[in-house]
Amino acid sequence: MAAAIITLTTDFGLEDSYSAAMKGVILGINPEANIIDITHHIKSHNILEAAFIIDSVYSYFPPGTIHVVVVDPGVGTKRKAVILQTPSGYFVAPDNGVLSYILKDLAEKSIATQAAAITNPAYIKNHVSNTFHGRDIFAPAAAHISLGIPRSEFGEPLTSLMTFDVPVPQKTAGGALTGEVIHTDAFGNLITDIKESDLPAGRFSVILGNCVIPGLSRSYAEGGDFLALIGSSGRLEIAARNSSAAQKLGLDTGARVEIRAAAGERNL
Amino acid sequence: MAAAIITLTTDFGLEDSYSAAMKGVILGINPEANIIDITHHIKSHNILEAAFIIDSVYSYFPPGTIHVVVVDPGVGTKRKAVILQTPSGYFVAPDNGVLSYILKDLAEKSIATQAAAITNPAYIKNHVSNTFHGRDIFAPAAAHISLGIPRSEFGEPLTSLMTFDVPVPQKTAGGALTGEVIHTDAFGNLITDIKESDLPAGRFSVILGNCVIPGLSRSYAEGGDFLALIGSSGRLEIAARNSSAAQKLGLDTGARVEIRAAAGERNL
Amino acid sequence: MAAAIITLTTDFGLEDSYSAAMKGVILGINPEANIIDITHHIKSHNILEAAFIIDSVYSYFPPGTIHVVVVDPGVGTKRKAVILQTPSGYFVAPDNGVLSYILKDLAEKSIATQAAAITNPAYIKNHVSNTFHGRDIFAPAAAHISLGIPRSEFGEPLTSLMTFDVPVPQKTAGGALTGEVIHTDAFGNLITDIKESDLPAGRFSVILGNCVIPGLSRSYAEGGDFLALIGSSGRLEIAARNSSAAQKLGLDTGARVEIRAAAGERNL
Repeated sequence: MAAAIITLTTDFGLEDSYSAAMKGVILGINPEANIIDITHHIKSHNILEAAFIIDSVYSYFPPGTIHVVVVDPGVGTKRKAVILQTPSGYFVAPDNGVLSYILKDLAEKSIATQAAAITNPAYIKNHVSNTFHGRDIFAPAAAHISLGIPRSEFGEPLTSLMTFDVPVPQKTAGGALTGEVIHTDAFGNLITDIKESDLPAGRFSVILGNCVIPGLSRSYAEGGDFLALIGSSGRLEIAARNSSAAQKLGLDTGARVEIRAAAGERNL
Repeated sequence: MAAAIITLTTDFGLEDSYSAAMKGVILGINPEANIIDITHHIKSHNILEAAFIIDSVYSYFPPGTIHVVVVDPGVGTKRKAVILQTPSGYFVAPDNGVLSYILKDLAEKSIATQAAAITNPAYIKNHVSNTFHGRDIFAPAAAHISLGIPRSEFGEPLTSLMTFDVPVPQKTAGGALTGEVIHTDAFGNLITDIKESDLPAGRFSVILGNCVIPGLSRSYAEGGDFLALIGSSGRLEIAARNSSAAQKLGLDTGARVEIRAAAGERNL
Repeated sequence: MAAAIITLTTDFGLEDSYSAAMKGVILGINPEANIIDITHHIKSHNILEAAFIIDSVYSYFPPGTIHVVVVDPGVGTKRKAVILQTPSGYFVAPDNGVLSYILKDLAEKSIATQAAAITNPAYIKNHVSNTFHGRDIFAPAAAHISLGIPRSEFGEPLTSLMTFDVPVPQKTAGGALTGEVIHTDAFGNLITDIKESDLPAGRFSVILGNCVIPGLSRSYAEGGDFLALIGSSGRLEIAARNSSAAQKLGLDTGARVEIRAAAGERNL
């Protein structure tokens, strides 16, 4: 049997020993676990960014993968520590909205939330720090799941978890579509909440600030100074030819983007 | 049998191929080794920072783990390359003080230093570079230890290794306690050399520069703009609510911190 | 049998989920693959830097290792996706020059190029994004190679791949040798295209900008403010004592370096 895969997504950075402490704890419980870093560079306390990142990647992992997501400004307060079990695998996280995109996907597919609180002391470190549940609660829980401990053993069942309203594009009265930038990647590409299926059938323009981009390009190497394309996550993305669109446009996550049908084309 | 775990702590950064070269060498000797990065972001040549980081994390790994620590400004000079064997595992490092905290812990537990120089050419790369012993001496040594080669095979036994005086808090004549910041983490939390057991029993204030913090908070989400708490390493830590204490206070590693009993409380 | 090793070299950074998506795809195809990061910090679109990095490290991995190198500004255009098979292992990359140093080494050893295009849909993701062949083409190809699928199954054989002219040192009319800085590492060491075997037998000076360094040092801890030595890659390297030569000299990759025989010594 192949080793269980446990992924880590945190805002701990790589300068300290925090992510390594989680790995040590996991390997102490399940020495066969295959631990994969998603990223430790979520911006400090940025729950929505973590929610986007884990949503963008979980489906590329084999079924049964255990995803630990620790962006946790409320560590040590009364927010719950939870396990969410889904058809594609497990998510182990604070109940603070960091699974909002995952839960939205499940809701859209009418899949009931199967979750549990993590409270059973048998699966928690003996001495729990008030500042590092990643090491003392989430890592041990993930490692125990990888050993086959069922969700119900960890604590009381939960049928709903905290979610944020994730950004979704809106139709305007005039028939245009407005969305927003939900992630700026390391290349400076601006990734929006507009999916391929949201776009009009005919010709259209993409408008960000003063920049008007006529229709979609097929690749980063095509198009003018700025180009719009369907990125690898299936979302509309604005890029700059061989440079950073974010920097060149002075825009970042949260920026508004508008889709307007070309003259003579039908509105949405 | 589970794969041997080898951890890496260096100041090599992640932009070059240096840490990967170490991994290639290890896997060439023991293809089953499970290599875990602690961090490669120790500040260049900062031996004391590396000493703190490895001390903060080693105890979370399973017994027998092999920790390679390479912050080595003296590479190519006469400083020794050494293996330190302890009840919790092995440390493979230059003999330059990078194991100072580990050795202090052993001394406090009255555990004799069991170490060896790495000089046996059988366990060293054929052509040793004068600038990269991480790849040519430390990685091969760790890989050979993971194969079960005993410490005594690597070179002459050593009963003492080089150590720096690690910072420890001091009582002042007036009964206050002074310590210092020994690590600033990526969140900007200021971690001091003061342990929970060093603190007075009654009410006290924590004083850093112009900042006076009344007593301890239990979590980062509690307290005022600045707060003091016992962090995940069991040490007194100063944090800023949802931001960087280091930045807001303009302080960094080395800064002085003072614990003063509240009026009416007994001094230490 | 030990797990197949697959290494990753990209310009994706570690802030996004791109490198993790590649890992998920690989583990979905071969759950036993041992995935090792070389670096994800190649400067955006810097093909020559990636070419240098993979060349500097591949020989330290066991034979049969599969190296995936994705610095790919032309993703989605007509540039080919290729597999290069060599005596030391496999390279999976866009055909854009990123394997130039590897191909030069093979040519110097008179080893014919054994390569194939990756076009067989059986070994490619079902839905290929135009912007992320790392995930949809290169990662699946590497995973399938690790399962033993022969090169010839992936697509048409190729006997030549695209290469850039890699920098090589030149003799001047006056008998001096001129080279250039081909990589600046994270310590600020300036690594040149001059190999140990290129250097004159007698005494010589190394000249960079206004800086004249008399001969070679043996280690970073020896020599004056600036020193020249043979670095871990077997190339002439210029370093600054306990600091960054690049910063102190205001020089970077591309800077010219000259080797001039000392008075009374024979020229090259």
